[in-house]
Amino acid sequence: MKHGGDLSEAMAQFGGTPEAWLDLSTGINPNPYPLPPLADDAWQRLPSRNGEAALLATARRAYAVPEDADIVAAPGTQALIQWLPRITARGAVAIVSPTYNEHAAAWRLAGHEVIAIDAVEEMPETARHIVVVNPNNPDGSVVDHVTLARVAEIVAARDGMMVIDEAFADLDPTISAVALCERWPVVVLRSFGKFYGIAGLRLGFAIGPQRLIARIGEAMGPWICSGPALAVGRAALEDDRWANETRDRLRKQVAKLDAVLQAAGFSTVGGTALFRLIRHPHASAYHTALARRQIWCRRFDWADDLLRFGLPPDDAALKRFALALADI
Amino acid sequence: MKHGGDLSEAMAQFGGTPEAWLDLSTGINPNPYPLPPLADDAWQRLPSRNGEAALLATARRAYAVPEDADIVAAPGTQALIQWLPRITARGAVAIVSPTYNEHAAAWRLAGHEVIAIDAVEEMPETARHIVVVNPNNPDGSVVDHVTLARVAEIVAARDGMMVIDEAFADLDPTISAVALCERWPVVVLRSFGKFYGIAGLRLGFAIGPQRLIARIGEAMGPWICSGPALAVGRAALEDDRWANETRDRLRKQVAKLDAVLQAAGFSTVGGTALFRLIRHPHASAYHTALARRQIWCRRFDWADDLLRFGLPPDDAALKRFALALADI
Repeated sequence: MKHGGDLSEAMAQFGGTPEAWLDLSTGINPNPYPLPPLADDAWQRLPSRNGEAALLATARRAYAVPEDADIVAAPGTQALIQWLPRITARGAVAIVSPTYNEHAAAWRLAGHEVIAIDAVEEMPETARHIVVVNPNNPDGSVVDHVTLARVAEIVAARDGMMVIDEAFADLDPTISAVALCERWPVVVLRSFGKFYGIAGLRLGFAIGPQRLIARIGEAMGPWICSGPALAVGRAALEDDRWANETRDRLRKQVAKLDAVLQAAGFSTVGGTALFRLIRHPHASAYHTALARRQIWCRRFDWADDLLRFGLPPDDAALKRFALALADI
Repeated sequence: MKHGGDLSEAMAQFGGTPEAWLDLSTGINPNPYPLPPLADDAWQRLPSRNGEAALLATARRAYAVPEDADIVAAPGTQALIQWLPRITARGAVAIVSPTYNEHAAAWRLAGHEVIAIDAVEEMPETARHIVVVNPNNPDGSVVDHVTLARVAEIVAARDGMMVIDEAFADLDPTISAVALCERWPVVVLRSFGKFYGIAGLRLGFAIGPQRLIARIGEAMGPWICSGPALAVGRAALEDDRWANETRDRLRKQVAKLDAVLQAAGFSTVGGTALFRLIRHPHASAYHTALARRQIWCRRFDWADDLLRFGLPPDDAALKRFALALADI
């Protein structure tokens, strides 16, 4: 199972229709931002420079981008993860691991050596670049700004790039290390689809020094984001009230999830308000038993005692999950 | 003016609201495919492998992809144009010119030498790769399959790649050289948004030998197309009746446009059923005079006697255009 969030594999192995499944395999908010009405032009015309500029101005404010730094939009942060190793100088990359596996895949594909490290402080002398997912996926661990800045300084001295993937930073905006972009060769990735629950839209951002962001933008070329992505992204990122209410709501939802996981005898390793990582000696058996009950969670190739659970969309789904766990 | 289809520049120079402008600067069908209803999942969930496979199966049939060739979807052919020079071997590229200017820009950005040539047959010995837009934009000229195959053979002998950009081939499917992909290192690009009139959706395809298409897919990474793009693309590409009726309709619309252009004293250089290229000694003055009347057409950096006109959306718009021309 390479990724969560795709029931194709679940259905191929265990049958059932998409409607029958309870999908807890993702870190996507199950209560999405309500789609604003979309003008015909958003679909029919090429996305305009004005529309893109309006989205980016809104995103700058929402993500507190420093004045001297720049921001570029992409069809999902995954598209940026694919491009970053292509627009930077050749050299080994250290990746704080285990983490979201597409970083290593993209750097390897582009011909860079990948060195897995346990913590940013352990960046080896042989590495030029570094990638850290902060908060980390799947364990939710967070690296503080002082530590990040210290490593960013080392990366700068090596003429390298530091990628900070903040896919799950919306839950606690104080985590964001976007301020580092002003001084160091740091590229911060911000996912739109997870917190706003609109992952199918494909929208993500890279924030960094002007020179680096310009290079990413040139590499991706014009009209890379769809008209609907420009319009929906702008409306959502302008809506501070929804964002604040959603943070509260997610915290309450994840507390309820924690209670269910604890009752089942799982020990929580970590996570964010959008998912929890648990450890259990029979994790793999639980994955199968839940799948037989058409509940899909996330397991990992690199550990057979870990499972990751996303948020059930509502109390009924949470109850279904609790009953299934009690039944196993 | 780098591209058509963006009123940002028109409004910055000549004022007016988007509604006031008649935009003839694009080659996008002004009568779009009617959007099918979109399931919530298309927006909220990550695009699934099943959804992508279903779109590609439909596109294979619609574009008559040979069994041994493969196809990959992207957020617009522009995204593919950006990636192609990055996944191929270093070497000069010959581009049949003048043409859509983003091909040269992308190859140059990726570090390849670009050689402008007048016709595919003139591919120089120093070139390894070749790009031809067929039918060409903006002059509509078409290269026959025998000529293309002869050049494809030369490209294969040089271990190069031949890119055939068929952005405007939907108007006459017999133009498509997709059959060449079975035998030669030919990548055919198919734009979705132009013929179907949904350019804001961002959807395009690359068709070619399995090895090349796999490399493009790997480079772009997962979830590169949005959920709405998978759903709308599939519905539209399945709808043969709409496609056939649209071809008829576009032919009638462009005949009416021709009559108006002729009445204005323009001589038609070429085009497709989605746009016409005209020559006039005072083309540049016409561009400005039309813009003052908030009609936006396409001019070119490389020729001051050419203008390109897209289709007016209806008879009222055509009449407005005719009256404006008569008034200049």
